[in-house]
Amino acid sequence: MELDGNLDVEIWPDIKSRDRVSFAVAWKQPKNQFSQYPNLKVISSLGAGADHLLKDSSISQDIALTRVVAPTLTDQMSDFVTLSALAMMRRFHDYNKQQVWSDWKPRINYKKEDLTVGVMGLGNIGKKVAARLTDNGFNVSGWSISKKNIPNVVTYTKAQLDSFLASTNILVCLLPLTKETKDILSLSLFKKLNKPGFLINVARGAHLVEEDLIYALDMGLLNQAALDVFQNEPLPESHPFWGRDSITITPHIASVTEPEEIAELILENYKRMLSGIELLNRVDRYKGY
Amino acid sequence: MELDGNLDVEIWPDIKSRDRVSFAVAWKQPKNQFSQYPNLKVISSLGAGADHLLKDSSISQDIALTRVVAPTLTDQMSDFVTLSALAMMRRFHDYNKQQVWSDWKPRINYKKEDLTVGVMGLGNIGKKVAARLTDNGFNVSGWSISKKNIPNVVTYTKAQLDSFLASTNILVCLLPLTKETKDILSLSLFKKLNKPGFLINVARGAHLVEEDLIYALDMGLLNQAALDVFQNEPLPESHPFWGRDSITITPHIASVTEPEEIAELILENYKRMLSGIELLNRVDRYKGY
Repeated sequence: MELDGNLDVEIWPDIKSRDRVSFAVAWKQPKNQFSQYPNLKVISSLGAGADHLLKDSSISQDIALTRVVAPTLTDQMSDFVTLSALAMMRRFHDYNKQQVWSDWKPRINYKKEDLTVGVMGLGNIGKKVAARLTDNGFNVSGWSISKKNIPNVVTYTKAQLDSFLASTNILVCLLPLTKETKDILSLSLFKKLNKPGFLINVARGAHLVEEDLIYALDMGLLNQAALDVFQNEPLPESHPFWGRDSITITPHIASVTEPEEIAELILENYKRMLSGIELLNRVDRYKGY
Repeated sequence: MELDGNLDVEIWPDIKSRDRVSFAVAWKQPKNQFSQYPNLKVISSLGAGADHLLKDSSISQDIALTRVVAPTLTDQMSDFVTLSALAMMRRFHDYNKQQVWSDWKPRINYKKEDLTVGVMGLGNIGKKVAARLTDNGFNVSGWSISKKNIPNVVTYTKAQLDSFLASTNILVCLLPLTKETKDILSLSLFKKLNKPGFLINVARGAHLVEEDLIYALDMGLLNQAALDVFQNEPLPESHPFWGRDSITITPHIASVTEPEEIAELILENYKRMLSGIELLNRVDRYKGY
Protein backbone atom coordinates (compact mmCIF):
# COMPACT_ATOMS: atom_id res chain seq x y z
CA MET A 1 0.00 0.00 0.00
CA GLU A 2 1.29 3.46 -0.85
CA LEU A 3 -0.51 6.52 0.43
CA ASP A 4 1.66 9.09 -1.29
CA GLY A 5 4.13 8.24 -4.06
CA ASN A 6 5.93 11.55 -3.67
CA LEU A 7 6.96 10.86 -0.08
CA ASP A 8 10.62 10.19 0.49
CA VAL A 9 10.67 7.43 3.14
CA GLU A 10 13.75 5.69 4.48
CA ILE A 11 13.84 2.69 6.79
CA TRP A 12 16.36 2.65 9.66
CA PRO A 13 19.22 1.67 9.66
CA ASP A 14 19.54 2.35 5.90
CA ILE A 15 19.48 6.14 6.04
CA LYS A 16 21.35 7.76 3.13
CA SER A 17 21.77 11.26 4.50
CA ARG A 18 20.80 11.91 8.09
CA ASP A 19 20.56 15.65 7.68
CA ARG A 20 17.63 15.28 5.27
CA VAL A 21 15.41 13.62 7.90
CA SER A 22 12.76 16.00 9.30
CA PHE A 23 10.09 13.56 10.52
CA ALA A 24 10.68 10.17 12.15
CA VAL A 25 8.37 7.32 13.13
CA ALA A 26 9.55 5.12 15.98
CA TRP A 27 8.42 2.23 18.22
CA LYS A 28 10.69 0.81 20.91
CA GLN A 29 13.71 2.14 19.04
CA PRO A 30 17.31 1.34 20.05
CA LYS A 31 18.64 3.99 22.42
CA ASN A 32 20.67 7.05 21.55
CA GLN A 33 19.89 7.22 17.87
CA PHE A 34 18.18 10.56 17.59
CA SER A 35 21.10 12.92 18.26
CA GLN A 36 22.40 12.02 14.80
CA TYR A 37 19.61 13.84 12.88
CA PRO A 38 20.32 17.60 12.99
CA ASN A 39 17.11 18.63 11.13
CA LEU A 40 14.65 16.34 12.89
CA LYS A 41 11.51 18.27 13.90
CA VAL A 42 8.92 15.63 14.81
CA ILE A 43 9.01 12.06 16.07
CA SER A 44 5.75 10.12 15.98
CA SER A 45 5.12 7.06 18.08
CA LEU A 46 3.57 4.21 16.11
CA GLY A 47 0.98 3.69 18.83
CA ALA A 48 -0.97 5.43 21.57
CA GLY A 49 1.91 5.13 24.04
CA ALA A 50 4.89 7.51 23.99
CA ASP A 51 6.84 6.19 26.99
CA HIS A 52 9.55 4.76 24.71
CA LEU A 53 10.16 8.27 23.33
CA LEU A 54 10.01 10.10 26.66
CA LYS A 55 12.70 7.95 28.22
CA ASP A 56 15.09 8.33 25.25
CA SER A 57 17.58 10.99 26.31
CA SER A 58 18.96 11.34 22.79
CA ILE A 59 15.80 13.23 21.77
CA SER A 60 16.33 16.98 22.02
CA GLN A 61 13.65 19.03 23.82
CA ASP A 62 13.16 20.98 20.57
CA ILE A 63 11.73 17.97 18.80
CA ALA A 64 7.94 17.64 18.91
CA LEU A 65 6.64 14.23 19.94
CA THR A 66 3.33 12.89 18.70
CA ARG A 67 1.42 9.69 19.13
CA VAL A 68 -1.27 7.93 17.15
CA VAL A 69 -4.82 7.43 18.43
CA ALA A 70 -6.59 5.43 15.77
CA PRO A 71 -10.38 4.95 15.88
CA THR A 72 -10.19 1.20 15.24
CA LEU A 73 -7.63 0.94 18.04
CA THR A 74 -10.09 2.57 20.43
CA ASP A 75 -12.88 0.30 19.22
CA GLN A 76 -10.76 -2.81 19.65
CA MET A 77 -9.90 -1.72 23.18
CA SER A 78 -13.60 -1.20 23.97
CA ASP A 79 -14.36 -4.70 22.65
CA PHE A 80 -11.56 -6.24 24.68
CA VAL A 81 -12.45 -4.56 27.97
CA THR A 82 -16.18 -5.26 27.53
CA LEU A 83 -15.42 -8.90 26.74
CA SER A 84 -13.13 -9.22 29.77
CA ALA A 85 -15.58 -7.53 32.16
CA LEU A 86 -18.51 -9.67 30.93
CA ALA A 87 -16.40 -12.83 31.25
CA MET A 88 -15.58 -11.91 34.85
CA MET A 89 -19.19 -11.12 35.70
CA ARG A 90 -20.43 -14.35 34.10
CA ARG A 91 -17.66 -16.44 35.72
CA PHE A 92 -16.31 -17.82 32.46
CA HIS A 93 -12.98 -18.64 34.13
CA ASP A 94 -14.83 -20.94 36.53
CA TYR A 95 -16.68 -22.65 33.69
CA ASN A 96 -13.46 -23.04 31.69
CA LYS A 97 -11.87 -24.82 34.64
CA GLN A 98 -14.95 -26.97 35.15
CA GLN A 99 -14.96 -28.07 31.50
CA VAL A 100 -11.54 -29.67 31.97
CA TRP A 101 -13.09 -31.90 34.66
CA SER A 102 -16.40 -32.53 32.80
CA ASP A 103 -17.97 -30.77 35.76
CA TRP A 104 -21.53 -29.45 35.26
CA LYS A 105 -21.96 -26.94 38.06
CA PRO A 106 -24.05 -23.78 37.58
CA ARG A 107 -22.70 -20.96 39.73
CA ILE A 108 -24.39 -17.94 41.18
CA ASN A 109 -23.97 -15.04 38.77
CA TYR A 110 -22.62 -11.77 39.95
CA LYS A 111 -25.39 -9.30 39.24
CA LYS A 112 -24.59 -6.34 37.07
CA GLU A 113 -26.24 -3.93 39.49
CA ASP A 114 -23.91 -5.12 42.26
CA LEU A 115 -20.71 -4.52 40.27
CA THR A 116 -19.01 -1.28 39.24
CA VAL A 117 -16.35 -1.12 36.56
CA GLY A 118 -13.76 1.57 37.32
CA VAL A 119 -11.69 2.92 34.45
CA MET A 120 -8.33 4.47 35.37
CA GLY A 121 -7.32 6.93 32.70
CA LEU A 122 -9.98 8.88 30.80
CA GLY A 123 -8.09 10.03 27.72
CA ASN A 124 -9.30 9.35 24.17
CA ILE A 125 -9.31 5.62 24.73
CA GLY A 126 -10.56 5.52 28.33
CA LYS A 127 -13.54 7.74 27.55
CA LYS A 128 -14.68 5.48 24.72
CA VAL A 129 -14.17 2.33 26.78
CA ALA A 130 -16.24 3.81 29.63
CA ALA A 131 -19.02 4.74 27.21
CA ARG A 132 -19.12 1.24 25.74
CA LEU A 133 -19.35 -0.27 29.22
CA THR A 134 -22.34 1.94 30.02
CA ASP A 135 -23.91 0.90 26.68
CA ASN A 136 -23.69 -2.64 27.99
CA GLY A 137 -25.50 -1.73 31.17
CA PHE A 138 -22.56 -1.69 33.57
CA ASN A 139 -22.26 0.77 36.43
CA VAL A 140 -19.13 2.70 35.44
CA SER A 141 -16.83 5.07 37.28
CA GLY A 142 -13.68 6.74 36.04
CA TRP A 143 -10.52 8.27 37.49
CA SER A 144 -8.27 10.84 35.85
CA ILE A 145 -5.97 13.71 36.78
CA SER A 146 -8.29 16.40 35.45
CA LYS A 147 -12.08 16.30 35.86
CA LYS A 148 -13.88 14.65 32.94
CA ASN A 149 -17.58 14.59 32.11
CA ILE A 150 -18.85 11.42 30.49
CA PRO A 151 -22.60 10.64 30.37
CA ASN A 152 -23.65 8.05 33.00
CA VAL A 153 -20.09 7.74 34.35
CA VAL A 154 -19.23 8.82 37.90
CA THR A 155 -15.85 10.53 37.55
CA TYR A 156 -13.19 11.10 40.21
CA THR A 157 -10.05 13.24 40.06
CA LYS A 158 -6.51 12.62 41.23
CA ALA A 159 -6.99 13.24 44.97
CA GLN A 160 -10.14 11.09 45.05
CA LEU A 161 -8.34 7.86 44.22
CA ASP A 162 -9.39 6.11 47.43
CA SER A 163 -13.08 6.89 46.90
CA PHE A 164 -12.82 5.71 43.30
CA LEU A 165 -11.23 2.43 44.39
CA ALA A 166 -13.73 1.85 47.21
CA SER A 167 -16.55 2.03 44.65
CA THR A 168 -14.82 -0.19 42.07
CA ASN A 169 -15.06 -3.97 41.61
CA ILE A 170 -13.60 -4.42 38.14
CA LEU A 171 -10.56 -2.15 37.81
CA VAL A 172 -9.50 -1.34 34.25
CA CYS A 173 -6.03 0.21 33.80
CA LEU A 174 -5.79 2.45 30.73
CA LEU A 175 -3.30 4.93 32.17
CA PRO A 176 -0.33 6.32 30.30
CA LEU A 177 2.95 5.08 31.75
CA THR A 178 4.64 7.90 33.68
CA LYS A 179 6.83 8.12 36.77
CA GLU A 180 3.65 8.60 38.81
CA THR A 181 1.70 5.69 37.35
CA LYS A 182 4.53 3.13 37.27
CA ASP A 183 3.82 0.43 39.89
CA ILE A 184 0.42 1.97 40.66
CA LEU A 185 -1.27 -1.47 40.56
CA SER A 186 0.15 -2.58 43.89
CA LEU A 187 -0.97 -4.42 47.00
CA SER A 188 -1.92 -1.19 48.78
CA LEU A 189 -4.20 -0.29 45.85
CA PHE A 190 -5.76 -3.76 45.63
CA LYS A 191 -6.60 -3.55 49.35
CA LYS A 192 -8.72 -0.45 48.69
CA LEU A 193 -10.90 -2.07 46.02
CA ASN A 194 -14.47 -3.12 46.65
CA LYS A 195 -15.14 -6.86 46.71
CA PRO A 196 -15.45 -8.98 44.67
CA GLY A 197 -12.37 -7.48 43.02
CA PHE A 198 -11.06 -7.95 39.49
CA LEU A 199 -8.24 -6.42 37.46
CA ILE A 200 -7.98 -5.77 33.73
CA ASN A 201 -4.60 -4.35 32.68
CA VAL A 202 -4.46 -3.27 29.06
CA ALA A 203 -2.05 -0.34 29.49
CA ARG A 204 1.58 -1.23 30.23
CA GLY A 205 3.20 -4.08 32.13
CA ALA A 206 5.14 -1.61 34.27
CA HIS A 207 1.91 -0.34 35.86
CA LEU A 208 1.68 -3.63 37.74
CA VAL A 209 3.78 -4.91 40.63
CA GLU A 210 3.69 -8.53 39.56
CA GLU A 211 4.38 -10.16 42.93
CA ASP A 212 1.67 -7.98 44.50
CA LEU A 213 -0.89 -9.33 42.04
CA ILE A 214 -0.12 -12.93 42.94
CA TYR A 215 -0.24 -12.07 46.63
CA ALA A 216 -3.59 -10.25 46.22
CA LEU A 217 -5.09 -13.21 44.33
CA ASP A 218 -3.86 -15.63 46.99
CA MET A 219 -5.25 -13.42 49.77
CA GLY A 220 -8.63 -13.21 48.04
CA LEU A 221 -8.39 -9.43 47.55
CA LEU A 222 -8.87 -10.14 43.86
CA ASN A 223 -10.84 -12.96 42.25
CA GLN A 224 -9.43 -12.78 38.77
CA ALA A 225 -7.09 -10.76 36.57
CA ALA A 226 -6.98 -10.34 32.79
CA LEU A 227 -3.54 -9.21 31.67
CA ASP A 228 -2.66 -8.22 28.13
CA VAL A 229 0.64 -6.44 28.93
CA PHE A 230 3.68 -7.49 30.95
CA GLN A 231 6.97 -6.18 32.31
CA ASN A 232 8.77 -8.43 29.82
CA GLU A 233 7.16 -9.30 26.50
CA PRO A 234 6.93 -11.98 25.28
CA LEU A 235 6.10 -13.18 28.79
CA PRO A 236 8.91 -15.67 29.56
CA GLU A 237 7.87 -19.33 29.47
CA SER A 238 8.97 -19.79 33.07
CA HIS A 239 6.86 -16.89 34.41
CA PRO A 240 4.50 -17.93 37.25
CA PHE A 241 1.56 -16.03 35.65
CA TRP A 242 1.18 -18.69 32.93
CA GLY A 243 0.17 -21.46 35.33
CA ARG A 244 -2.42 -19.50 37.33
CA ASP A 245 -6.00 -20.07 36.34
CA SER A 246 -6.96 -16.88 38.18
CA ILE A 247 -4.96 -14.96 35.56
CA THR A 248 -6.10 -14.79 31.93
CA ILE A 249 -3.16 -14.06 29.65
CA THR A 250 -3.37 -12.57 26.17
CA PRO A 251 -0.24 -11.68 24.17
CA HIS A 252 -0.60 -7.87 23.92
CA ILE A 253 -3.50 -8.05 21.47
CA ALA A 254 -6.13 -5.91 23.21
CA SER A 255 -5.73 -3.42 20.42
CA VAL A 256 -3.62 -4.07 17.39
CA THR A 257 -2.44 -1.32 15.11
CA GLU A 258 -3.71 -1.52 11.55
CA PRO A 259 -0.92 -0.27 9.29
CA GLU A 260 -3.21 1.45 6.75
CA GLU A 261 -4.97 3.48 9.39
CA ILE A 262 -1.81 4.45 11.25
CA ALA A 263 -0.06 5.46 8.01
CA GLU A 264 -2.84 7.92 7.18
CA LEU A 265 -2.71 9.52 10.61
CA ILE A 266 1.07 9.86 10.48
CA LEU A 267 0.96 11.33 6.98
CA GLU A 268 -1.57 13.88 8.25
CA ASN A 269 0.88 15.04 10.90
CA TYR A 270 3.73 15.13 8.37
CA LYS A 271 1.68 17.46 6.18
CA ARG A 272 0.83 19.57 9.23
CA MET A 273 4.51 19.86 10.10
CA LEU A 274 5.34 21.00 6.54
CA SER A 275 2.46 23.50 6.61
CA GLY A 276 3.13 24.80 10.10
CA ILE A 277 -0.35 23.72 11.30
CA GLU A 278 -0.76 22.44 14.85
CA LEU A 279 0.15 18.75 15.17
CA LEU A 280 -2.46 16.18 16.21
CA ASN A 281 -2.04 14.13 19.41
CA ARG A 282 1.05 15.97 20.56
CA VAL A 283 2.79 14.48 23.60
CA ASP A 284 3.14 16.77 26.63
CA ARG A 285 6.61 16.16 28.08
CA TYR A 286 5.60 17.67 31.41
CA LYS A 287 2.53 15.47 31.88
CA GLY A 288 4.44 12.55 30.46
CA TYR A 289 1.89 11.49 27.81
CA MET B 1 -40.28 -13.35 50.09
CA GLU B 2 -44.01 -13.05 49.95
CA LEU B 3 -45.65 -10.90 47.29
CA ASP B 4 -49.22 -11.36 48.43
CA GLY B 5 -50.15 -12.86 51.79
CA ASN B 6 -53.74 -13.48 50.70
CA LEU B 7 -52.74 -15.82 47.93
CA ASP B 8 -53.55 -19.46 48.49
CA VAL B 9 -50.55 -21.34 47.08
CA GLU B 10 -50.04 -25.10 47.20
CA ILE B 11 -46.90 -26.95 46.16
CA TRP B 12 -47.27 -30.17 44.14
CA PRO B 13 -47.62 -33.00 45.13
CA ASP B 14 -49.24 -31.77 48.39
CA ILE B 15 -52.50 -30.52 46.90
CA LYS B 16 -55.38 -30.59 49.39
CA SER B 17 -58.31 -30.26 47.01
CA ARG B 18 -57.62 -30.44 43.32
CA ASP B 19 -60.88 -28.85 42.29
CA ARG B 20 -59.89 -25.57 43.93
CA VAL B 21 -56.86 -25.11 41.62
CA SER B 22 -57.49 -22.48 38.93
CA PHE B 23 -53.94 -21.37 38.08
CA ALA B 24 -50.83 -23.57 37.93
CA VAL B 25 -47.14 -22.83 37.53
CA ALA B 26 -45.02 -25.59 36.00
CA TRP B 27 -41.51 -26.34 34.75
CA LYS B 28 -40.58 -29.73 33.32
CA GLN B 29 -43.47 -31.29 35.22
CA PRO B 30 -44.06 -35.06 35.41
CA LYS B 31 -46.40 -36.20 32.64
CA ASN B 32 -50.13 -36.68 32.79
CA GLN B 33 -50.85 -34.63 35.90
CA PHE B 34 -53.10 -31.93 34.57
CA SER B 35 -56.24 -33.97 33.80
CA GLN B 36 -56.82 -34.16 37.57
CA TYR B 37 -57.68 -30.46 38.01
CA PRO B 38 -61.24 -29.86 36.74
CA ASN B 39 -61.23 -26.08 37.30
CA LEU B 40 -57.76 -25.28 35.99
CA LYS B 41 -57.88 -22.25 33.66
CA VAL B 42 -54.25 -21.16 33.18
CA ILE B 43 -50.87 -22.86 33.33
CA SER B 44 -47.81 -20.61 33.36
CA SER B 45 -44.37 -21.82 32.38
CA LEU B 46 -41.68 -20.70 34.84
CA GLY B 47 -39.49 -19.53 31.96
CA ALA B 48 -39.52 -18.22 28.39
CA GLY B 49 -39.90 -21.71 26.93
CA ALA B 50 -43.25 -23.52 26.84
CA ASP B 51 -42.23 -26.72 25.02
CA HIS B 52 -42.67 -28.78 28.22
CA LEU B 53 -46.33 -27.65 28.36
CA LEU B 54 -47.07 -28.09 24.67
CA LYS B 55 -45.96 -31.71 24.63
CA ASP B 56 -48.02 -32.64 27.73
CA SER B 57 -51.15 -34.35 26.38
CA SER B 58 -52.89 -34.19 29.77
CA ILE B 59 -53.42 -30.44 29.30
CA SER B 60 -56.86 -29.73 27.85
CA GLN B 61 -57.11 -27.35 24.89
CA ASP B 62 -59.36 -25.14 27.02
CA ILE B 63 -56.56 -24.25 29.38
CA ALA B 64 -54.63 -21.07 28.52
CA LEU B 65 -50.85 -21.43 28.51
CA THR B 66 -48.58 -18.52 29.36
CA ARG B 67 -44.85 -18.06 29.67
CA VAL B 68 -42.64 -15.59 31.47
CA VAL B 69 -40.40 -13.10 29.67
CA ALA B 70 -38.51 -11.26 32.38
CA PRO B 71 -36.46 -8.13 31.57
CA THR B 72 -33.39 -9.28 33.53
CA LEU B 73 -33.59 -12.59 31.70
CA THR B 74 -33.42 -10.75 28.39
CA ASP B 75 -30.55 -8.61 29.65
CA GLN B 76 -28.61 -11.64 30.85
CA MET B 77 -29.11 -13.28 27.46
CA SER B 78 -27.82 -10.15 25.71
CA ASP B 79 -24.74 -10.17 27.96
CA PHE B 80 -24.08 -13.83 27.31
CA VAL B 81 -24.42 -13.66 23.53
CA THR B 82 -22.34 -10.46 23.31
CA LEU B 83 -19.65 -12.04 25.47
CA SER B 84 -19.62 -15.22 23.38
CA ALA B 85 -19.52 -13.35 20.05
CA LEU B 86 -16.70 -11.05 21.24
CA ALA B 87 -14.73 -14.05 22.57
CA MET B 88 -15.04 -15.74 19.16
CA MET B 89 -14.02 -12.62 17.28
CA ARG B 90 -11.04 -12.02 19.58
CA ARG B 91 -10.00 -15.69 19.48
CA PHE B 92 -10.11 -16.16 23.25
CA HIS B 93 -10.40 -19.93 22.80
CA ASP B 94 -7.03 -19.92 21.01
CA TYR B 95 -5.43 -17.85 23.75
CA ASN B 96 -6.89 -20.10 26.45
CA LYS B 97 -5.31 -23.11 24.77
CA GLN B 98 -2.02 -21.28 24.36
CA GLN B 99 -1.90 -20.34 28.04
CA VAL B 100 -1.82 -24.04 28.97
CA TRP B 101 1.42 -24.34 26.97
CA SER B 102 2.92 -21.00 28.08
CA ASP B 103 2.72 -20.09 24.42
CA TRP B 104 2.94 -16.35 23.58
CA LYS B 105 1.58 -16.14 20.05
CA PRO B 106 -0.44 -13.13 18.90
CA ARG B 107 -2.98 -14.14 16.26
CA ILE B 108 -4.57 -12.19 13.49
CA ASN B 109 -7.86 -10.77 14.75
CA TYR B 110 -11.02 -11.30 12.86
CA LYS B 111 -12.20 -7.83 11.96
CA LYS B 112 -15.64 -6.81 13.08
CA GLU B 113 -16.50 -5.42 9.65
CA ASP B 114 -15.78 -8.82 8.10
CA LEU B 115 -18.11 -10.75 10.44
CA THR B 116 -21.90 -10.82 10.62
CA VAL B 117 -23.78 -12.15 13.62
CA GLY B 118 -27.04 -13.82 12.58
CA VAL B 119 -29.76 -14.18 15.19
CA MET B 120 -32.33 -16.95 14.59
CA GLY B 121 -35.55 -16.08 16.38
CA LEU B 122 -36.59 -12.45 16.77
CA GLY B 123 -39.09 -12.65 19.61
CA ASN B 124 -38.83 -10.56 22.77
CA ILE B 125 -35.42 -11.95 23.60
CA GLY B 126 -33.97 -12.17 20.08
CA LYS B 127 -34.84 -8.54 19.30
CA LYS B 128 -33.05 -7.29 22.40
CA VAL B 129 -30.02 -9.49 21.76
CA ALA B 130 -29.79 -8.20 18.18
CA ALA B 131 -30.00 -4.60 19.40
CA ARG B 132 -27.23 -5.14 21.94
CA LEU B 133 -24.99 -6.65 19.28
CA THR B 134 -25.49 -3.59 17.06
CA ASP B 135 -24.71 -1.37 20.09
CA ASN B 136 -21.39 -3.18 20.21
CA GLY B 137 -20.67 -2.43 16.56
CA PHE B 138 -21.40 -5.83 15.08
CA ASN B 139 -23.00 -6.31 11.69
CA VAL B 140 -26.23 -8.08 12.63
CA SER B 141 -28.84 -9.97 10.66
CA GLY B 142 -31.92 -11.76 11.92
CA TRP B 143 -34.25 -14.53 10.80
CA SER B 144 -37.83 -15.10 11.91
CA ILE B 145 -41.08 -16.51 10.58
CA SER B 146 -42.79 -13.13 10.27
CA LYS B 147 -41.02 -9.99 9.05
CA LYS B 148 -39.50 -7.92 11.87
CA ASN B 149 -38.10 -4.40 11.80
CA ILE B 150 -35.15 -3.74 14.10
CA PRO B 151 -32.93 -0.68 13.59
CA ASN B 152 -29.60 -1.53 11.90
CA VAL B 153 -30.50 -5.21 11.62
CA VAL B 154 -30.98 -6.87 8.21
CA THR B 155 -33.99 -9.16 8.71
CA TYR B 156 -34.98 -12.24 6.73
CA THR B 157 -38.21 -14.24 6.82
CA LYS B 158 -38.87 -17.96 6.81
CA ALA B 159 -38.35 -18.65 3.09
CA GLN B 160 -35.12 -16.62 3.04
CA LEU B 161 -33.22 -18.96 5.36
CA ASP B 162 -30.50 -19.75 2.83
CA SER B 163 -29.76 -16.06 2.17
CA PHE B 164 -29.68 -15.41 5.91
CA LEU B 165 -27.21 -18.25 6.47
CA ALA B 166 -25.00 -17.24 3.53
CA SER B 167 -24.56 -13.81 5.14
CA THR B 168 -23.95 -15.14 8.66
CA ASN B 169 -20.65 -15.99 10.36
CA ILE B 170 -21.67 -16.19 14.00
CA LEU B 171 -25.01 -18.02 14.20
CA VAL B 172 -27.02 -17.43 17.38
CA CYS B 173 -29.93 -19.79 18.05
CA LEU B 174 -32.71 -18.19 20.09
CA LEU B 175 -35.60 -20.08 18.50
CA PRO B 176 -38.51 -21.58 20.39
CA LEU B 177 -38.45 -25.37 20.28
CA THR B 178 -41.17 -26.61 17.92
CA LYS B 179 -41.57 -29.56 15.54
CA GLU B 180 -40.17 -27.33 12.79
CA THR B 181 -37.14 -26.05 14.69
CA LYS B 182 -36.09 -29.33 16.32
CA ASP B 183 -32.83 -30.51 14.76
CA ILE B 184 -32.55 -27.30 12.72
CA LEU B 185 -28.86 -26.90 13.64
CA SER B 186 -27.71 -29.68 11.34
CA LEU B 187 -24.88 -30.37 8.92
CA SER B 188 -26.90 -29.13 5.93
CA LEU B 189 -27.42 -25.81 7.74
CA PHE B 190 -23.77 -25.48 8.81
CA LYS B 191 -22.74 -25.99 5.16
CA LYS B 192 -24.72 -22.91 4.16
CA LEU B 193 -23.02 -20.57 6.66
CA ASN B 194 -20.45 -17.99 5.63
CA LYS B 195 -16.87 -18.65 6.74
CA PRO B 196 -15.35 -18.36 9.26
CA GLY B 197 -18.36 -19.98 10.93
CA PHE B 198 -19.32 -20.04 14.60
CA LEU B 199 -22.32 -21.31 16.56
CA ILE B 200 -23.88 -20.01 19.78
CA ASN B 201 -26.79 -22.15 21.01
CA VAL B 202 -28.65 -20.63 23.94
CA ALA B 203 -32.13 -21.94 23.08
CA ARG B 204 -32.70 -25.68 23.57
CA GLY B 205 -30.42 -28.69 23.23
CA ALA B 206 -32.90 -30.36 20.87
CA HIS B 207 -32.29 -27.67 18.24
CA LEU B 208 -28.87 -29.19 17.64
CA VAL B 209 -27.96 -32.47 15.96
CA GLU B 210 -24.99 -33.20 18.21
CA GLU B 211 -23.06 -35.51 15.89
CA ASP B 212 -23.46 -32.98 13.06
CA LEU B 213 -21.78 -30.31 15.16
CA ILE B 214 -18.72 -32.47 15.80
CA TYR B 215 -18.57 -33.38 12.11
CA ALA B 216 -18.86 -29.71 11.08
CA LEU B 217 -16.07 -28.69 13.48
CA ASP B 218 -13.84 -31.50 12.21
CA MET B 219 -14.54 -30.54 8.58
CA GLY B 220 -13.73 -26.91 9.28
CA LEU B 221 -17.26 -25.71 8.45
CA LEU B 222 -17.29 -24.23 11.94
CA ASN B 223 -14.36 -22.84 13.93
CA GLN B 224 -15.93 -22.79 17.36
CA ALA B 225 -19.19 -23.40 19.18
CA ALA B 226 -20.50 -22.04 22.47
CA LEU B 227 -23.21 -24.30 23.89
CA ASP B 228 -25.26 -23.50 26.96
CA VAL B 229 -28.02 -26.09 26.37
CA PHE B 230 -27.90 -29.81 25.63
CA GLN B 231 -30.10 -32.77 24.70
CA ASN B 232 -29.48 -34.18 28.17
CA GLU B 233 -28.82 -31.91 31.11
CA PRO B 234 -26.65 -32.12 33.11
CA LEU B 235 -24.42 -33.02 30.14
CA PRO B 236 -23.24 -36.56 30.98
CA GLU B 237 -19.62 -36.82 32.11
CA SER B 238 -18.83 -39.20 29.27
CA HIS B 239 -20.18 -36.87 26.55
CA PRO B 240 -17.62 -36.15 23.80
CA PHE B 241 -18.40 -32.38 23.89
CA TRP B 242 -16.53 -31.96 27.19
CA GLY B 243 -13.14 -32.81 25.76
CA ARG B 244 -13.33 -30.62 22.66
CA ASP B 245 -11.53 -27.30 22.93
CA SER B 246 -13.51 -26.08 19.91
CA ILE B 247 -16.65 -26.29 22.08
CA THR B 248 -17.17 -23.96 25.03
CA ILE B 249 -19.57 -25.49 27.53
CA THR B 250 -21.62 -23.61 30.11
CA PRO B 251 -24.18 -25.35 32.35
CA HIS B 252 -27.42 -23.71 31.13
CA ILE B 253 -26.62 -20.34 32.74
CA ALA B 254 -27.01 -17.96 29.78
CA SER B 255 -30.00 -16.53 31.53
CA VAL B 256 -31.03 -17.52 34.99
CA THR B 257 -34.49 -16.89 36.33
CA GLU B 258 -34.62 -14.60 39.33
CA PRO B 259 -37.44 -15.85 41.58
CA GLU B 260 -38.58 -12.38 42.74
CA GLU B 261 -38.98 -11.10 39.21
CA ILE B 262 -40.73 -14.22 37.93
CA ALA B 263 -43.12 -14.26 40.90
CA GLU B 264 -44.31 -10.74 40.14
CA LEU B 265 -44.95 -11.53 36.49
CA ILE B 266 -46.88 -14.68 37.37
CA LEU B 267 -48.95 -12.86 39.98
CA GLU B 268 -49.81 -10.26 37.35
CA ASN B 269 -51.24 -12.97 35.08
CA TYR B 270 -53.11 -14.53 38.02
CA LYS B 271 -54.81 -11.20 38.69
CA ARG B 272 -55.57 -10.83 35.00
CA MET B 273 -57.19 -14.26 34.95
CA LEU B 274 -59.38 -13.36 37.93
CA SER B 275 -60.33 -10.05 36.32
CA GLY B 276 -60.93 -11.45 32.85
CA ILE B 277 -58.25 -9.16 31.35
CA GLU B 278 -56.10 -10.47 28.49
CA LEU B 279 -53.17 -12.58 29.72
CA LEU B 280 -49.58 -11.51 29.11
CA ASN B 281 -47.21 -13.68 27.03
CA ARG B 282 -49.86 -16.18 26.06
CA VAL B 283 -48.58 -19.27 24.23
CA ASP B 284 -50.03 -19.90 20.75
CA ARG B 285 -50.62 -23.64 20.44
CA TYR B 286 -50.72 -23.45 16.63
CA LYS B 287 -47.38 -21.64 16.30
CA GLY B 288 -45.96 -23.77 19.06
CA TYR B 289 -44.58 -20.94 21.25
